[in-house]
Amino acid sequence: MATRIFELEKPKLKNPLFIEGLPGIGHVGRIAAQFLVEELKAKKFAELLSSHFMHYVLLQQSSSVHVLKNEFYYVKAKGKGRDLILLIGDSQSIDPEGHYEIAHEILDYMRKFGVKEMITLGGLGIGEVKENPKVIGAVSDDGLDKKYKNFSIDFDAGSKVGTIIGASGLLLGLGKVYGMKGVCLLGETSGYPILPDPRAAEVVLKVLMKMLNVKLDIRKLDKKVKEMEEFIKKIEEMQRKAIGQMMQQQMPPRGKEGKEELSYIG
Amino acid sequence: MATRIFELEKPKLKNPLFIEGLPGIGHVGRIAAQFLVEELKAKKFAELLSSHFMHYVLLQQSSSVHVLKNEFYYVKAKGKGRDLILLIGDSQSIDPEGHYEIAHEILDYMRKFGVKEMITLGGLGIGEVKENPKVIGAVSDDGLDKKYKNFSIDFDAGSKVGTIIGASGLLLGLGKVYGMKGVCLLGETSGYPILPDPRAAEVVLKVLMKMLNVKLDIRKLDKKVKEMEEFIKKIEEMQRKAIGQMMQQQMPPRGKEGKEELSYIG
Amino acid sequence: MATRIFELEKPKLKNPLFIEGLPGIGHVGRIAAQFLVEELKAKKFAELLSSHFMHYVLLQQSSSVHVLKNEFYYVKAKGKGRDLILLIGDSQSIDPEGHYEIAHEILDYMRKFGVKEMITLGGLGIGEVKENPKVIGAVSDDGLDKKYKNFSIDFDAGSKVGTIIGASGLLLGLGKVYGMKGVCLLGETSGYPILPDPRAAEVVLKVLMKMLNVKLDIRKLDKKVKEMEEFIKKIEEMQRKAIGQMMQQQMPPRGKEGKEELSYIG
Amino acid sequence: MATRIFELEKPKLKNPLFIEGLPGIGHVGRIAAQFLVEELKAKKFAELLSSHFMHYVLLQQSSSVHVLKNEFYYVKAKGKGRDLILLIGDSQSIDPEGHYEIAHEILDYMRKFGVKEMITLGGLGIGEVKENPKVIGAVSDDGLDKKYKNFSIDFDAGSKVGTIIGASGLLLGLGKVYGMKGVCLLGETSGYPILPDPRAAEVVLKVLMKMLNVKLDIRKLDKKVKEMEEFIKKIEEMQRKAIGQMMQQQMPPRGKEGKEELSYIG
Repeated sequence: MATRIFELEKPKLKNPLFIEGLPGIGHVGRIAAQFLVEELKAKKFAELLSSHFMHYVLLQQSSSVHVLKNEFYYVKAKGKGRDLILLIGDSQSIDPEGHYEIAHEILDYMRKFGVKEMITLGGLGIGEVKENPKVIGAVSDDGLDKKYKNFSIDFDAGSKVGTIIGASGLLLGLGKVYGMKGVCLLGETSGYPILPDPRAAEVVLKVLMKMLNVKLDIRKLDKKVKEMEEFIKKIEEMQRKAIGQMMQQQMPPRGKEGKEELSYIG
Repeated sequence: MATRIFELEKPKLKNPLFIEGLPGIGHVGRIAAQFLVEELKAKKFAELLSSHFMHYVLLQQSSSVHVLKNEFYYVKAKGKGRDLILLIGDSQSIDPEGHYEIAHEILDYMRKFGVKEMITLGGLGIGEVKENPKVIGAVSDDGLDKKYKNFSIDFDAGSKVGTIIGASGLLLGLGKVYGMKGVCLLGETSGYPILPDPRAAEVVLKVLMKMLNVKLDIRKLDKKVKEMEEFIKKIEEMQRKAIGQMMQQQMPPRGKEGKEELSYIG
Repeated sequence: MATRIFELEKPKLKNPLFIEGLPGIGHVGRIAAQFLVEELKAKKFAELLSSHFMHYVLLQQSSSVHVLKNEFYYVKAKGKGRDLILLIGDSQSIDPEGHYEIAHEILDYMRKFGVKEMITLGGLGIGEVKENPKVIGAVSDDGLDKKYKNFSIDFDAGSKVGTIIGASGLLLGLGKVYGMKGVCLLGETSGYPILPDPRAAEVVLKVLMKMLNVKLDIRKLDKKVKEMEEFIKKIEEMQRKAIGQMMQQQMPPRGKEGKEELSYIG
Repeated sequence: MATRIFELEKPKLKNPLFIEGLPGIGHVGRIAAQFLVEELKAKKFAELLSSHFMHYVLLQQSSSVHVLKNEFYYVKAKGKGRDLILLIGDSQSIDPEGHYEIAHEILDYMRKFGVKEMITLGGLGIGEVKENPKVIGAVSDDGLDKKYKNFSIDFDAGSKVGTIIGASGLLLGLGKVYGMKGVCLLGETSGYPILPDPRAAEVVLKVLMKMLNVKLDIRKLDKKVKEMEEFIKKIEEMQRKAIGQMMQQQMPPRGKEGKEELSYIG
């Protein structure tokens, strides 16, 4: 299968802005994008499945299973706003090759909607907890930072010489091949792996609201993130178990019918 | 090659129910499905080979080699029963990507037989030995648990927020893409890797017999599982060796003919 | 590229017997097959390259490089003998998936020459040095051991419940799909990884000579293996280095022309 | 995507000589080739992207992102010189299979320009710092060393029985399949992973200038390499972090709308 997108609907969108918020450091991008999806009442129109996600399904409260996926949502423009496509999801690729494959798949799909501009969201691990985290910006092209200068984004990041790992970086970087430009917004976060960082997501959301020219009640964020923390701890424990169990899925062949065979069932 | 199915026969089946029991935790699913294959005298009609299995063959009592494979069996309906397709095998994929590839291959093949419903079997590691293990159920779709409510399945599993690893989970979760629904039956087991757990398999079998409306003499199970334990211990030792030997399969090129070459054979 | 066979010549062969001797435990199969290639003056007719070999070339005495490969040789029948195809090489796949890919590639190619029977050669690690190592046999099909009963092969191997790792096992096991049968000859060897085991190769060669009905001066074997040992030690040291160096092949991008860029060369 | 070359221009070149200088031990080849690109004012005409590079982008001084890539440059012949194609880049494949895939992609592309000869550049780790490092040569074909005998290359390397890892070795070795011959120039270097070795690059450059019959002011090399060292140290630190972060990019699915679901955002 590799990676495949399943469409639920074919929305007609006018010059949509593409916003990516997949899980990553501090879950910053995911929290922010998910908040937008809910508060803007975005509508899901496609799902992406990939053999580069972990090989398990999640068990939900309702006892139904959930395959790991990425989900595309759209929001039709209201007032001064613009049509939006939002990408959220459960997982990014678990191997480098899959990261490229999925990024190309997404960009190829976005091109079909006429996407010319994107905003990717993520966290930037800085190794300490900061009272007032900043939003660090990276752009797809030299000089493009000027376009985004009125949104309280720190464009000095380059001086620290770093990398942007995974979808947020690759989508922006590979976008050129698909005729897309854009900016990556990284909320400063401690980088401690397990816990989601609502503070970092909040500052990213504030910049985003300015850019999108929308007003959302950001106070709801805290409560939701609280609930999320315990959930994530459980899930990560499950993941550790999952890796351990991969070793157990092999077994000897079924015994042959002949008498001289060692007889067994499994 | 990747993954390929070799057909031995093309059985005509009416709305068959697909049951999967590949090796996993406690070998619960495999033991249960294998028991059905033998007791219902199911007939093999196809084999699945994959480059995502380990790169060795097993040596059988008869000194013939056995390639790792998954096997499809069918049972024609008798009395009130339904046509069945049973999937058992020696191994699951040894890498995450292969798990997806094989699941899609299986589902694609099952669709050709008109499969609309499946039951996948496995174990649920709970970290302790339980006197009376339960059968935990997971369904492919919200609300589907009601359909299976009369079979002593515990559908509270979701509250524990877990994952179903490998074929049992992926087949159920990806089945939606292929128009299939179903249930996964997980027998509670300690999760200790090496030993097969006949108790967990037994409770799963009891639920299965109710669902399939068949009566089988489940007392045979114990004896067969006993024989199996020693066999599995040997096999797992072999597997550890196999991994060690992977490092040894490289060698310098054959010496050139010229005198000035360092001459050697291998 | 994956795996590809490059033909140097298209020999016409009558019902050829295919013999495989790639590197493995104690280099038993490789030593034996290489000896046959040299003593029977076999002619190379094809080479197999694969992206599943290590990503380096070997430097030869002549300062020319040698890409890792597998090589096909043929010998035309003389007297009572049969046309032979011999496969030797520098390496087996370094990952499980490649083992399957290469085995299928080889079998597919062999089928074009009408191969119906094969002999695969290898070592069986028994954890101790034995005065008189035996040749353990495994066959592709139940009952086929009877066909080979007159050649001093021990067909009790099955009772030890083991595995045959890599090409020797997979070629035999997957051969069924290609309409081929055969036997695997495993010389008992200590299993100590680095050193080639000429004693094990010798007993395998003795069985082989009987089967092929040829007489070769097996005393040459010792001298050649001596020379080989030092060579192999050097190569294996190189391999360890090679793995260490994989980490070093990445580097920052070239500096941009602008003054504000950190300027550097590499 | 795998590996793909994006053309910026289609230069017409006459029997061009292909020179490869990708990152490797001591960054010897990359430093030398980069110096040629700058001093000969070579023009970029194509870029190679690959899913076998790390899954991140680099953040540049200008706050724009840089996708890891390999770059093709050309130089038109002046005076006695020859048309050149130079290959430099940020990275080599991070897995063995990718090394083969990328090498084949490059060779296939070079064949379109009529390339018949290549020079690949690299370092040879010797475990010690040498006052006067030598340039060790390896050739694609037996006897070809004679063609390069007037350029102060040490062709005794074969006696040390070694390997050439990655692009420099594979391009030379696989070139045969594409009708190309050539030489690999390896500057002796300590092999200490992090620091680039300008001394080794210098001796390689001196040989290269003789071969290409060009004169360049090699004193500029030192200053540039100085600036580079700090940069590389930072980048390698980033890479270590990147690997750590791969573990964090998974997350539970978004909560379902129903009340009984555990509600959360991310």
